[in-house]
Amino acid sequence: MPTTLPTAGREWHLVARPTGWPTDANFALRTAPVSEPGAGEILVRNRYLSVDPYMRGRMNAGRSYIAPFELDEPMLGDALGEVVASRAEGFAVGDLVTHHQGWREFATLPAADAVPVPRDLDVPDTAFLGVLGMTGLTAYVGMKDIARVREGDVVFVSGAAGAVGGPAGQMARLLGASRVIGSAGGPEKTRLLTEEFGFDAAVDYKAAPVGEQLAKAAPEGIDVYFDNVGGDHLEAALDALNVFGRVAVCGLISSYNATEPAPGPRNLGLVLGRRLRVEGYLVTDHQERREEFLRQTAEWLRAGQLRYRETVCEGIERATEAFLAMMRGGNVGKMLVSLEG
Amino acid sequence: MPTTLPTAGREWHLVARPTGWPTDANFALRTAPVSEPGAGEILVRNRYLSVDPYMRGRMNAGRSYIAPFELDEPMLGDALGEVVASRAEGFAVGDLVTHHQGWREFATLPAADAVPVPRDLDVPDTAFLGVLGMTGLTAYVGMKDIARVREGDVVFVSGAAGAVGGPAGQMARLLGASRVIGSAGGPEKTRLLTEEFGFDAAVDYKAAPVGEQLAKAAPEGIDVYFDNVGGDHLEAALDALNVFGRVAVCGLISSYNATEPAPGPRNLGLVLGRRLRVEGYLVTDHQERREEFLRQTAEWLRAGQLRYRETVCEGIERATEAFLAMMRGGNVGKMLVSLEG
Repeated sequence: MPTTLPTAGREWHLVARPTGWPTDANFALRTAPVSEPGAGEILVRNRYLSVDPYMRGRMNAGRSYIAPFELDEPMLGDALGEVVASRAEGFAVGDLVTHHQGWREFATLPAADAVPVPRDLDVPDTAFLGVLGMTGLTAYVGMKDIARVREGDVVFVSGAAGAVGGPAGQMARLLGASRVIGSAGGPEKTRLLTEEFGFDAAVDYKAAPVGEQLAKAAPEGIDVYFDNVGGDHLEAALDALNVFGRVAVCGLISSYNATEPAPGPRNLGLVLGRRLRVEGYLVTDHQERREEFLRQTAEWLRAGQLRYRETVCEGIERATEAFLAMMRGGNVGKMLVSLEG
Repeated sequence: MPTTLPTAGREWHLVARPTGWPTDANFALRTAPVSEPGAGEILVRNRYLSVDPYMRGRMNAGRSYIAPFELDEPMLGDALGEVVASRAEGFAVGDLVTHHQGWREFATLPAADAVPVPRDLDVPDTAFLGVLGMTGLTAYVGMKDIARVREGDVVFVSGAAGAVGGPAGQMARLLGASRVIGSAGGPEKTRLLTEEFGFDAAVDYKAAPVGEQLAKAAPEGIDVYFDNVGGDHLEAALDALNVFGRVAVCGLISSYNATEPAPGPRNLGLVLGRRLRVEGYLVTDHQERREEFLRQTAEWLRAGQLRYRETVCEGIERATEAFLAMMRGGNVGKMLVSLEG
């Protein structure tokens, strides 16, 4: 083992649970010792951290689908890094891995918790934190297994310029949808949807009510709504859904920083007469789809049929800033924090 | 053909579309000519009419899952009657049939639209308008195909003293549920649930908030909610649902007479973290299950494993009164109108 191993590194701690929108006062960047890997462990120098909307939920205390972040402990999240020391079979210094010990410069972890990055797919490494990582798998599972998109479906995706929504809309088309409509905030993002991602129409939720725009974009109604947003997007989608329509509830970013629960859509009763199915899912329950997803998605990428964007913030000290910017829609595609600088 | 065939009969017409709760002013009982059956038709003397919550939706104009009642035309609905004239093969005078030309004393209809009542099941005829008819099939399909009740599930059924809810809760148990909880209004009905229908616990929604009572009745949460009501019942059920819980949306009686759409439940976001599935359905889409349902349900009835109740109003002139009483919860079990008197 080389003698240049790091003995300390910086890591983000949650120091106070936020109410409503988090602020700088909720977080602290601290330096902590780096432990040497024990038997079966690896030490990873993180190159990129992933910041994602679901992390807001982990900042709250109490019952949720995922354990809350502990106070005064490193926050967790997906990261891509390089093995700098290994006491695990099959992992060598220099290997690239993804893992879930993010929000820090160095992580010592059981090799069993790391996923080697395939080197034969001819895609940029950062794709494994995005379109070939958790967010891409989320899009794939949501369209294929939850919404069960079919030949000829008209599909509406909210948050379509984001890390999940962009791939979700394109995958819908690749899986047979006849028309794909996306929503995003502002003309730059909506242009991206129609001009680069191949959406048939885009709804700018900042420009006019979603319902009005969606009715124009889908005069025959929609068959699938892939929800990243909730709120008025969900209400508009319910109005537009055709009989036997399906809603894959992937995210509800409009509510994550609310201090009071908002009432649900006034038109939820349409679920009955139109025989709608509204289903929530978490990608963590669908890891068995990962292999198929990787193979299929890499193929789409190589064929130029699937495009994605990244927004990269430089420096671990900007990680919470990147997280908050992403929550406010300041990203295009996957929001990443680079530790390469 | 006997010479005593009726030449006129009474029938209920919708004469004005109701706003909110219907009143006598919305309906008229009129006498109309009875036409002789043509080739392939039968003439039926109705013995029992079925009044059901979904009929309220048909009184409205405009887009719905089912065509609205026409003004100044006979309203439609399930009925049980005796063939008094037949020009159709396989139908003889005296045969009992069910059909959908209700709200009238006599109906001339294509034999293809009539369903012969099986005589070998050893159950009262009226069962074919209830537990062995549309409402029973609704319960069966909802539990088996939509909620997909499994061994060990804890199941909550609203409107459980009604024509659908009573069978639904008992079928859940017969299909493997470990604990069944029902809601109803008032002590007479809740006692019926626990003492006669075999529910493990009952919630009296008139006595205290549903959520409080449900939390006590299902301290470990519920896995299935069979919804006949909507509103605060749905909100309470969402709070109680365990991960991978399912909601079969069968009816939303709390909203049928509302003049303004009510906001949806404040806790709809639980759909995501708990990976819930909320699915609406209509029995009309599931007629292919009828044969299996009849065989299975008749078996349960014969074995004394499934119980049901009926509330019978006497006289066609009381049909709208029976409908409104049913909408207000004035029935126990299936609400029927007898024309036998």
